[in-house]
Amino acid sequence: MPQEKNLTMLCDFYELTMAYGYFKTGLCNKITYFDVFFRGIPDNGGFAIAAGLEQIVDYVKNLHFSPQDIEYLRGKGLFDEEFLNYLKEFRFTGDIYAIPEGTPVFPYEPLITVCAPAIEAQLIETYLLLQINHQSLIATKASRIVRSAQGRAVLEFGSRRAQGGDGAVLGARAAYIGGCAGTACTLTDELYGVPAGGTMAHSWVQMFDTEYDAFRTYCEIYPHNATLLVDTYDTLRSGVPNAIRVFKEILLPQGITDFGIRLDSGDISYLSKKARKMLDEAGLTTCKIVASNSLDEYLIRDLMMQGAQIDTFGVGERLITAKSTPVFGGVYKLAAVEDEDGTIRPKIKISENTVKITNPHFKKVYRFYDKESGKALADELCVYDEKIDETAPHTIFDQNATWKTKTLSNFTVRELQVPIFKKGECVYQVPALDAVKAYCADQLETLWDEVKRFENPHTYYVDLSEKLWYVKSGLLEAAKR
Amino acid sequence: MPQEKNLTMLCDFYELTMAYGYFKTGLCNKITYFDVFFRGIPDNGGFAIAAGLEQIVDYVKNLHFSPQDIEYLRGKGLFDEEFLNYLKEFRFTGDIYAIPEGTPVFPYEPLITVCAPAIEAQLIETYLLLQINHQSLIATKASRIVRSAQGRAVLEFGSRRAQGGDGAVLGARAAYIGGCAGTACTLTDELYGVPAGGTMAHSWVQMFDTEYDAFRTYCEIYPHNATLLVDTYDTLRSGVPNAIRVFKEILLPQGITDFGIRLDSGDISYLSKKARKMLDEAGLTTCKIVASNSLDEYLIRDLMMQGAQIDTFGVGERLITAKSTPVFGGVYKLAAVEDEDGTIRPKIKISENTVKITNPHFKKVYRFYDKESGKALADELCVYDEKIDETAPHTIFDQNATWKTKTLSNFTVRELQVPIFKKGECVYQVPALDAVKAYCADQLETLWDEVKRFENPHTYYVDLSEKLWYVKSGLLEAAKR
Repeated sequence: MPQEKNLTMLCDFYELTMAYGYFKTGLCNKITYFDVFFRGIPDNGGFAIAAGLEQIVDYVKNLHFSPQDIEYLRGKGLFDEEFLNYLKEFRFTGDIYAIPEGTPVFPYEPLITVCAPAIEAQLIETYLLLQINHQSLIATKASRIVRSAQGRAVLEFGSRRAQGGDGAVLGARAAYIGGCAGTACTLTDELYGVPAGGTMAHSWVQMFDTEYDAFRTYCEIYPHNATLLVDTYDTLRSGVPNAIRVFKEILLPQGITDFGIRLDSGDISYLSKKARKMLDEAGLTTCKIVASNSLDEYLIRDLMMQGAQIDTFGVGERLITAKSTPVFGGVYKLAAVEDEDGTIRPKIKISENTVKITNPHFKKVYRFYDKESGKALADELCVYDEKIDETAPHTIFDQNATWKTKTLSNFTVRELQVPIFKKGECVYQVPALDAVKAYCADQLETLWDEVKRFENPHTYYVDLSEKLWYVKSGLLEAAKR
Repeated sequence: MPQEKNLTMLCDFYELTMAYGYFKTGLCNKITYFDVFFRGIPDNGGFAIAAGLEQIVDYVKNLHFSPQDIEYLRGKGLFDEEFLNYLKEFRFTGDIYAIPEGTPVFPYEPLITVCAPAIEAQLIETYLLLQINHQSLIATKASRIVRSAQGRAVLEFGSRRAQGGDGAVLGARAAYIGGCAGTACTLTDELYGVPAGGTMAHSWVQMFDTEYDAFRTYCEIYPHNATLLVDTYDTLRSGVPNAIRVFKEILLPQGITDFGIRLDSGDISYLSKKARKMLDEAGLTTCKIVASNSLDEYLIRDLMMQGAQIDTFGVGERLITAKSTPVFGGVYKLAAVEDEDGTIRPKIKISENTVKITNPHFKKVYRFYDKESGKALADELCVYDEKIDETAPHTIFDQNATWKTKTLSNFTVRELQVPIFKKGECVYQVPALDAVKAYCADQLETLWDEVKRFENPHTYYVDLSEKLWYVKSGLLEAAKR
């Protein structure tokens, strides 16, 4: 067994070479401001769901280099003993602000802002991005799939196809935030309380002499919530009839009616309608039908349109890997540095590709809600010291098109980021996962349907304050000269 | 911080409900044979690279339920104390055979065969699939990307976009097996010895008053292998000229010539050719050019065709998530059960979809090599007790088309699976990762170019022995009746 993983070492090596560079040049304690943000929404959707913060809190609290880590770094032959001694005492001492998990978020807004000495801020780059990118990806995908199911339950079934153990365990966690009702992954239940369930595989059916025996035995052991897998041999000619027989012989006489069948292959629409008819004709109207087999939001939407008789969807590989867009492109960019006297100097990253130009400065994000409908109108990126007057009309500026402004009135505002760490101390009470899930569902209600549409959703406004707009323009002008 | 993960609990919950079912019905110790195999090759490629076995060996060795696990399971209210007591002592006691990591593998052949009491074989399903699916996926993708680079080094740069921590760390491990020369992931180096490297991010350049200062400072601290990131402001007008100036001022006077530049945005083909010209004209012909920016095998192939002047490719999200096909569809299917008297009874899973019909029985896999060229001709699935006579012509049978046979002669054969566990004891010496990587490269040499082609590769033969063909036909006939 390899040694226990220290996640502090889950960094890109350049973070260590830069750290040493800062250490050797006295830039070590220079205060820097970094933003985590993303540029595009997976599947061309209208919004994403932020997730992964709880794991980041754990990670930052535990940030340290173990003796083995120091030994490993010494062996690289790049760093001197003074630096290695410094790393032995290394802890995170900065501030972190973040948008809570479960919040619908949009491109270019800082999901996380780190304000810390250069070495510290740089070192946590990879892990912060990795968690936000992974869990936001899966929460966002889950939200799409759950919406496509129009109230039917969606269960996460994908562990075996996940990209690694964390992909399975934390992917199931993120899927729950995004709206899934449960998971097949036992460890996610044990660690995070996401309800895990499951009944049988084809192998259970194959282990018995007959399908009937397999079903009967299962219902005898688990009289409640028995979901029988009916496609091992022949769904309509063998599986469903055997299930009906067993439900009638074993469960109905005990007054038990909370049973179901699972379809895992073939044409789910056709089979579910046929099976529903057979079950109903046998008087088993309470029998639920679970469907699984390479499902995603598009297939579920089609199944719903075709009147498929499905009560619960089990979704595997296309959710746990977000197969159609398996990358959430969060980046970590320097936004400002602090001078010795505490002056915050905004920084910008230029690119020939305008969408890659960063929004400079230590920023806040405000969300504007329509006072009457409660719907979200726009998000505004401001300089950190700006406050919004809710009683007056407020003009926001497009990030790129200088002539594009929008004036909002009759609104309430909410600051999206909350403090997570202050001077290295965690000041955030991580909410229970069920609360995060409920908050996410509530927040979705504040989005217009036009933003939630799968195809060509409305582009939600993420604009700049007038002050930030001038800061950005000034830096661009200066760079040009 | 959540409790330490016990990977034994990284199972689908149905494995536990079935386990309890087997326990209650006396099927608990029935010996079962399960195969791990896959049906399709990612990216419509001609072969895959097996990977993930080392982690499976660790996992099986450590299989156990902790007191917290037992407590969690008790809380589910489904299992009795007798079973929970049984789980307290649970260990793996069976046999496992597997195709070693780094081997080119093909659809329908058992990468792993588990022969164990039903509960044990069932419980390890998810973790075995997860590791094989994840690491084979990434190793296969890496192999494609490395081949597209035609001898230029490919480095794995994707941790921040990985699907979770294991996705990053073990993904980088798998990428190394598949042919990558190194990684940016520090932890993968510390744990598995995959060489990690890296120099600077844009933030390094931004931290200094000028790009020139940033480059000069870096080269003073790291005079060797300095790779300067030249696209923070303007690649050709600022980045490359500043790099040239620093190399000439700081490094050449010390006789140092092992430096480079990195292009991370813009048109890599154009910029690399321009940069190469500028470097050469400045006499810096040893300066390497590293390129990164959403690369994959298709983009690299195009860059090579266009004469891009790139020495090293850094590949991120499209490798670490295998973005174009992010799922490796390995499955775990019951192939046989053993009667009390030791008779092995083959089992089959029927499906209306013929490609989903399983190959029954406890099997061996032989690879046939042409005696003269050493090239792989075909793989054959046999019943476990079959031996191949290398001195006589040998006929193999298509898995589905009854009339399709092929007769091989003048061959040598190799059995692909090797014993990993025998009666619960590990009998396999896990090879060093560098040996796996070298073995993989050697094995690729045994494949015809036609199998390695990206588009429409030749479908390699994975056929059945005559004996296995009759076993399968017999079971299909019996099922029909």
